[in-house]
Amino acid sequence: MQVKDLGEFPLIDRIKKRIRTTPALVKGIGDDCAVLKFTKDKYQLFTCDMLVSGVDFNPDEDPQLIGRKALAVSLSDIAACSGLPRHCLVSLGIPPKYPVAKIDAIYRGIIKLAGEYKVNIAGGDLSRAPSFFIDLSLIGEVEKDRLTLRTGAKPRDVIFVTGSLGGSLKGKHLKFTPRIKEARLLSRNFKVNSMIDISDGLSQDLGHILKASSVGATIYEGLIPQSPDCRSLKGALSDGEDFELLFTLSLAEANRLFSRRISGVTPIGFTTPAGSGLKLVRKNGRTETLKTFSGYTHF
Amino acid sequence: MQVKDLGEFPLIDRIKKRIRTTPALVKGIGDDCAVLKFTKDKYQLFTCDMLVSGVDFNPDEDPQLIGRKALAVSLSDIAACSGLPRHCLVSLGIPPKYPVAKIDAIYRGIIKLAGEYKVNIAGGDLSRAPSFFIDLSLIGEVEKDRLTLRTGAKPRDVIFVTGSLGGSLKGKHLKFTPRIKEARLLSRNFKVNSMIDISDGLSQDLGHILKASSVGATIYEGLIPQSPDCRSLKGALSDGEDFELLFTLSLAEANRLFSRRISGVTPIGFTTPAGSGLKLVRKNGRTETLKTFSGYTHF
Repeated sequence: MQVKDLGEFPLIDRIKKRIRTTPALVKGIGDDCAVLKFTKDKYQLFTCDMLVSGVDFNPDEDPQLIGRKALAVSLSDIAACSGLPRHCLVSLGIPPKYPVAKIDAIYRGIIKLAGEYKVNIAGGDLSRAPSFFIDLSLIGEVEKDRLTLRTGAKPRDVIFVTGSLGGSLKGKHLKFTPRIKEARLLSRNFKVNSMIDISDGLSQDLGHILKASSVGATIYEGLIPQSPDCRSLKGALSDGEDFELLFTLSLAEANRLFSRRISGVTPIGFTTPAGSGLKLVRKNGRTETLKTFSGYTHF
Repeated sequence: MQVKDLGEFPLIDRIKKRIRTTPALVKGIGDDCAVLKFTKDKYQLFTCDMLVSGVDFNPDEDPQLIGRKALAVSLSDIAACSGLPRHCLVSLGIPPKYPVAKIDAIYRGIIKLAGEYKVNIAGGDLSRAPSFFIDLSLIGEVEKDRLTLRTGAKPRDVIFVTGSLGGSLKGKHLKFTPRIKEARLLSRNFKVNSMIDISDGLSQDLGHILKASSVGATIYEGLIPQSPDCRSLKGALSDGEDFELLFTLSLAEANRLFSRRISGVTPIGFTTPAGSGLKLVRKNGRTETLKTFSGYTHF
């Protein structure tokens, strides 16, 4: 069997099943970050993301934006756990004929964004490689009582997203703002039951919350905020690379959020009991069942 | 200018110069691990290493050994800093037609070695890629007073190596034992002035200590322990991939080590004042000057 026949998520499940861990690891494979024991009041967060030339970005793309994105996607993982980023390592696989000027520009992009988020570039590795790639690993931290995971959604939670969705490949995916500030504001002021970042499309990433939390969900076409670059419901549901936050609050907490007039977050539906699946209520009032794993996969 | 024209170490220097860091980072680019502030008594260590198919290993190699090596090289970095490993993330770049059985075997190799060293496999990332690679990032920790770096060698230190050198590409590079146990024993019982792991060959890695510590060195051909698979001085000096430890002790500490009859470590020479360069005393009594950066480079 080849990897493309098995698929990305079954491959991750297959790996996950074989791994045994110690209590020092609070949360392993299966969330936006690994969660590690740290201090009395805090957990440490640990995440990594790869960008492969020709797969995750066009080789002709502005290299400064590629560098920026390499860090931004990991910042988005830290945001999904409501944490603050601290230190990163940068691994580059580089073809020997790659221009030094492009490496310079890639690092300009990483360094600039790292500065904005007070992240230390602590080291890394360089290797010759047949085609270019970046893998960036990032350590962050979060107060124990503010950690947000994919697990924790309860039936009748209100589902929210930050920003707007879809059409990100037209440009936003290279320039998005990791939602650290928003996640910190939410986790400081509200009890957030579950959170994930939308990297593979709303339906797929909501699917991760539903699976991890054993709930269903109903969302409303008319409520889903579509990006200007997105001109279809399908795009908002499954384009991916939005890097917005998707989170759930109990109804009482949601009402508190509404009363506080928090801007930039939109309720799109609510969670339902386990086994209800993912339902979409169309603008015409009809209800459809969505496949939860219909977004981007690598294989 | 292309990366191959600049070379690996000048490229690292070029990147390093442009990076500003905060005091939370105790030691950034330029040692075996990054060193992070952690608890009152301990530092955290953070390192990553890539293995690229066709560059760092033969694609037909036993995949279980490739997985093992991916973790082992990072364990060796932790050893060089006298630390203990804790948690790792595994990123895999995978061609779509790659056999699932090979991924299984790669993970078997990682999981087995992780178990031996009590390392949690905390997560990772998968991406489609034109050719196979692994990048593994590893968090460890070390007591503040036991941290060993490339800096810290003083003139007239005795230089030691663990194990034997050279010829590693005949097999040892896939099966070596990361010298965690040895490093812990050394740092518990002796004041180790400087340490590095030998990944790019003795002369090059000793060169890193000399540069970082601003000292010179004289080593003796007759003292350098050669591996059975190595049949030349040149191999012992520059084959690379030995993953043995290279470290220096003051003369007084070295004498304590000799009196304790610690096995598995061999004195090979001593450090000299700054500006003396790296000298090799041949068996015939003649002294040669070695180029310190004559081992493996990626570009």
